[in-house]
Amino acid sequence: MHITPWEVRGEVNYDEIIKEFGVELITDDIIERLKKYTNNIHVLLRRKIFFAHREFEDWLDSFEKGIKVILYTGRGPSGYTHLGHLIPWIFTKYLQDVFKADLYFQVTDDEKFLIHPEMSMEDIENFTNDNILDIIAVGFDPERTKIFTNLNYKEIYRIAVRIARHITFSTAKATFGFTESSNIGIIFFPAMQAAPCFLYQILEGKDAHVLIPCAIDQEPYWRISRDVAPKLRFRKPAGIYSKFIPGLGANGKMSTSHPETCIFLKDSPEDVKRKIWNAFTGGQPTLKEQKEKGGNPNICVVYWYLYFYFEDDDKKVEEIYNECIIGKRICGECKELLTKKIIEFLIEHQKRREKAKDMVEKYLLKD
Amino acid sequence: MHITPWEVRGEVNYDEIIKEFGVELITDDIIERLKKYTNNIHVLLRRKIFFAHREFEDWLDSFEKGIKVILYTGRGPSGYTHLGHLIPWIFTKYLQDVFKADLYFQVTDDEKFLIHPEMSMEDIENFTNDNILDIIAVGFDPERTKIFTNLNYKEIYRIAVRIARHITFSTAKATFGFTESSNIGIIFFPAMQAAPCFLYQILEGKDAHVLIPCAIDQEPYWRISRDVAPKLRFRKPAGIYSKFIPGLGANGKMSTSHPETCIFLKDSPEDVKRKIWNAFTGGQPTLKEQKEKGGNPNICVVYWYLYFYFEDDDKKVEEIYNECIIGKRICGECKELLTKKIIEFLIEHQKRREKAKDMVEKYLLKD
Repeated sequence: MHITPWEVRGEVNYDEIIKEFGVELITDDIIERLKKYTNNIHVLLRRKIFFAHREFEDWLDSFEKGIKVILYTGRGPSGYTHLGHLIPWIFTKYLQDVFKADLYFQVTDDEKFLIHPEMSMEDIENFTNDNILDIIAVGFDPERTKIFTNLNYKEIYRIAVRIARHITFSTAKATFGFTESSNIGIIFFPAMQAAPCFLYQILEGKDAHVLIPCAIDQEPYWRISRDVAPKLRFRKPAGIYSKFIPGLGANGKMSTSHPETCIFLKDSPEDVKRKIWNAFTGGQPTLKEQKEKGGNPNICVVYWYLYFYFEDDDKKVEEIYNECIIGKRICGECKELLTKKIIEFLIEHQKRREKAKDMVEKYLLKD
Repeated sequence: MHITPWEVRGEVNYDEIIKEFGVELITDDIIERLKKYTNNIHVLLRRKIFFAHREFEDWLDSFEKGIKVILYTGRGPSGYTHLGHLIPWIFTKYLQDVFKADLYFQVTDDEKFLIHPEMSMEDIENFTNDNILDIIAVGFDPERTKIFTNLNYKEIYRIAVRIARHITFSTAKATFGFTESSNIGIIFFPAMQAAPCFLYQILEGKDAHVLIPCAIDQEPYWRISRDVAPKLRFRKPAGIYSKFIPGLGANGKMSTSHPETCIFLKDSPEDVKRKIWNAFTGGQPTLKEQKEKGGNPNICVVYWYLYFYFEDDDKKVEEIYNECIIGKRICGECKELLTKKIIEFLIEHQKRREKAKDMVEKYLLKD
């Protein structure tokens, strides 16, 4: 297993990741503590899709002490947004709502240009503009949310040089696996990604405690931020980390270059029907066998999708699992349920995305 | 001998540099050709202080063909400006006047912050604001000159990522001597310095031929720009290169950390008198010996200063040389002459610098 922000090779073993990255599990105690702030424990937390953290409890302490709490997350605009991207943003919005936190949302157009030699600057700009609509459509509080792109908001480079002065090539190489043939832009990029950890503090000249909700593969960036923070006299950012959101192929493979394995946010109901119909399941080859032997929800992508987000009802999801195992439930039922849930979700999202077109200026952070 | 933009170690052998860098000498033929465009061949050319070039003749060809010609030079704001910095700018202004060329003037505040761990961002900003006044005081055509700093003009980072995508760590290491302990900001910086080579072309969407007047130690940067130019479908920049401007110490040593070896542009007449009085000369220890044996102008810093810029009259400078050698001239005379010339020069510069305070907005390039 090999994890950098640019590639995940091999099967993912989350126990190993926890150990390798030195992060901690989200415990039931933490979830209990959250009930002090909200009656609604988000499905992504209940199901432990957001499964790990670093100093999340310290961030909660800061919140309780009245220290300014900030959220920071991001998006690399190298394609159209799909469900896998959206899930962590939905969770970020949840945190924003619970903690009334300011959110900085970084679009790493520079990074995507630097790692995709086949893409033009225009390609990246098109995806950037497109993706920003999806970000806004999540429904972040417009008064508390600032979206920016690294190529269009110069403060990020200004902060990045302060960070970069403290990061040697040797450290960056060890953390991100750079080689002699890495380009000098991507070698510098970790400083650009670290910069928003200190943006509020620098813009406002005030203390703040930043929490970064993101997929676990982004965690190496925050180690850099955490190393540098004390040197710049800022507080170290905390993190809360999700598992990888599965695709629709066998073993949950998902890839933008194989569009049939992803549900894009622009997909039509017909697209969704077809993709879910063709998704990899844990069912038996025939109805007869399914009824005799039962299916295997543990390897079933359709079940996973219901579990990780689309079936909010804990009892219902347990029922589905149990019925599948004993052969009482057939794949068609699950596919139909999931298709319905996703189509509903996308219709709502697409409506909000249309409205987002008039709200871009409101959200964009300007120099 | 070891030359990178950040250090010159050992004695400088210009023949070796020519060979090592693969640049060409400024020949008398080139100087003859310039007489087509101007009756005034600048003293820095006549004396071959600007001694080498790369494709300067091609740039002249472009000028003759009516292709847009552009000048690009820069300043690293890590201290107050001294005469050694100003000399190439004066020559750049000369080229601007002769060829009616647009000039982009880059202030590399990012670079100086990245290589000076002892300096704060505020230090760099103070020197930046101060140095810009000296740049403007040179008298560049305000209609054709745009000054910008890398931390304040975001287009540079935008262009730099396009360049950086084509430069591997291995290439940057070979060219600039980076090591494992170089910081990731300075590793990226060559792309920032290369960016203005393509600024006009990108801003205007038109072809242009860029000429870079600078000290020879900056030449490695333009090799990078030249390698990348065809990949971005731009013309390769040409260069015209000066020798290092000597300081006032023995062997022409000059260092901002030893202020007595530099004439700063803020120096008072008293400062100039004292510094020139204490400058290293080729004179004999006593007046008697000077008259008997003659002096050695070849190692005399005072003579160098008269030669490289301050005595414009070719006959006069030859006379000084000849009189010194045969002991007819004593050091006091040369020191007095140089002191007078420098004080006159500084008084004029300082007047223009005062006026520059109201002209900053006119010159600054904005996003």
